[in-house]
Amino acid sequence: MTKALYDKVAIIGIGLVGSSVLHAASRAQLAGELLAWDHKPEVRAEARQLGLPGRIVENIEELGAADLVLLCVPVGAMAGVMQLLGPCLQPDTVITDTGSTKRSVIRDVGPLVPDHVLFIPSHPLAGTEFSGPGAGFPDLFKNRYWLLIENGAPDEQMGRLARFFVGLGAVVEVMDADYHDRVLALTSHLPHLIAYTIVSTAVDLEADLKNDVIRFSASGFRDFTRIAASDPTMWRDVFLNNDEAVLEMLQRFSEDLSYLQRAIRWQEGDKLHDLFTRTRSIRRSIIDAGQD
Amino acid sequence: MTKALYDKVAIIGIGLVGSSVLHAASRAQLAGELLAWDHKPEVRAEARQLGLPGRIVENIEELGAADLVLLCVPVGAMAGVMQLLGPCLQPDTVITDTGSTKRSVIRDVGPLVPDHVLFIPSHPLAGTEFSGPGAGFPDLFKNRYWLLIENGAPDEQMGRLARFFVGLGAVVEVMDADYHDRVLALTSHLPHLIAYTIVSTAVDLEADLKNDVIRFSASGFRDFTRIAASDPTMWRDVFLNNDEAVLEMLQRFSEDLSYLQRAIRWQEGDKLHDLFTRTRSIRRSIIDAGQD
Repeated sequence: MTKALYDKVAIIGIGLVGSSVLHAASRAQLAGELLAWDHKPEVRAEARQLGLPGRIVENIEELGAADLVLLCVPVGAMAGVMQLLGPCLQPDTVITDTGSTKRSVIRDVGPLVPDHVLFIPSHPLAGTEFSGPGAGFPDLFKNRYWLLIENGAPDEQMGRLARFFVGLGAVVEVMDADYHDRVLALTSHLPHLIAYTIVSTAVDLEADLKNDVIRFSASGFRDFTRIAASDPTMWRDVFLNNDEAVLEMLQRFSEDLSYLQRAIRWQEGDKLHDLFTRTRSIRRSIIDAGQD
Repeated sequence: MTKALYDKVAIIGIGLVGSSVLHAASRAQLAGELLAWDHKPEVRAEARQLGLPGRIVENIEELGAADLVLLCVPVGAMAGVMQLLGPCLQPDTVITDTGSTKRSVIRDVGPLVPDHVLFIPSHPLAGTEFSGPGAGFPDLFKNRYWLLIENGAPDEQMGRLARFFVGLGAVVEVMDADYHDRVLALTSHLPHLIAYTIVSTAVDLEADLKNDVIRFSASGFRDFTRIAASDPTMWRDVFLNNDEAVLEMLQRFSEDLSYLQRAIRWQEGDKLHDLFTRTRSIRRSIIDAGQD
């Protein structure tokens, strides 16, 4: 039996990530008490109806006694939540967030954190294309990375938070915010942007062709549609808040795409074959790294 | 028990598709005899060592007695194979191919088909990122579309070939070559091109960043690496041979990507949110169409 790492753990934002934290923390008994709040009354009602673990509170002020708070809202909503929450917090509370961009969260949330409170940003690399309080499940974080961001926190608090994430099933890595945003721009943000784009290209096709694109989607396109079904608000905020790194990676991508486009137009088969052979080796590296 | 639809069925090209046809046709007893040949001696040797169903012959001339021949080679190799095979064929033999582009195959292979032989192009929408004679399995075509291309063949021969594909587990649809090439350009060729591109962008990153892109690949990028591990020769030939439709779809894609890029640069959140909401509906259509 795991000893509770925190007395009161509060979740703000009862979506896919927030509800999964409730499930996983409850199962592993990581908290003396679990509390949760969402700014939408209908989400709070749905969370109660679903019987999610923990107590769903009506007012954000009721979270003031927590010793750990997780902000599980889209990155564009972090600052607004922190403005409401900041004044209620006790000394020595630890706050973390689960946002997909880290520089913007430190920029927007950091100044609103009271001096007696510790803010340690983080990011679980876990998700599905589903959203809302019914989308969560206890194994969402199992064997997935949870990135802990260097923000000047003492070792003791970093260590306890890391153990909490490990208790949720995750593998913890520490990195700095700038590096995080560049890595995620390529591994996550750009793939999502491209998936949204190609599916949007299909949306605008003439009706017959569009219907057949849907019927015959099995050969590659279908994987893109799954990615492009992800939560629109969360992803809007990701692109607005990691714009610099995304635009940099997008520029590289566009150059590489132009290279291939030109090779197709000029029938340069060797260039295509060479590049397609090099990309195979990355897949091999991912399998070797156990990330497959 | 299925009655054999053809006396002698010959497979040319013992890769993923060819070996899967051998497995599936053997299991369903669709042929009196199964024969197979590959232009590479080491592939023929490997196929024998694997104990693939059917008889692996040493010379393409030994396939001359077949009443059905399937060309399972990359589209760029179809004409060369047909030049060798054409003179050996008996009257009334049916030839089909499994190439991913159809206008180019009709253009390149059509003129080499002897007058007394019937050429019915086709394309199974089935595959994996693996290749070679060991990659095949009997269920590759199960519930997958196999597109039969209108090329002036009589109903009787179209019908028998369709029953053969259904016997392999597939769902058969008939369409014309032009339309096929446009639909596949968007559902398959463009997604592959984009996946190759984004993985190639990662290949060129500085070493540290590249290593971490591989480690943290779970969030979208990993799906692209799977697609970008597909057979380089097959895909080179696809892009060289469906260049017109691919370049058209790529042009549309690039315009749509520029639209999103500009919205990110100018922080136009509403445009992003609207588009991300519209793409969700396509995913819903695919689930409704049972293609998920």
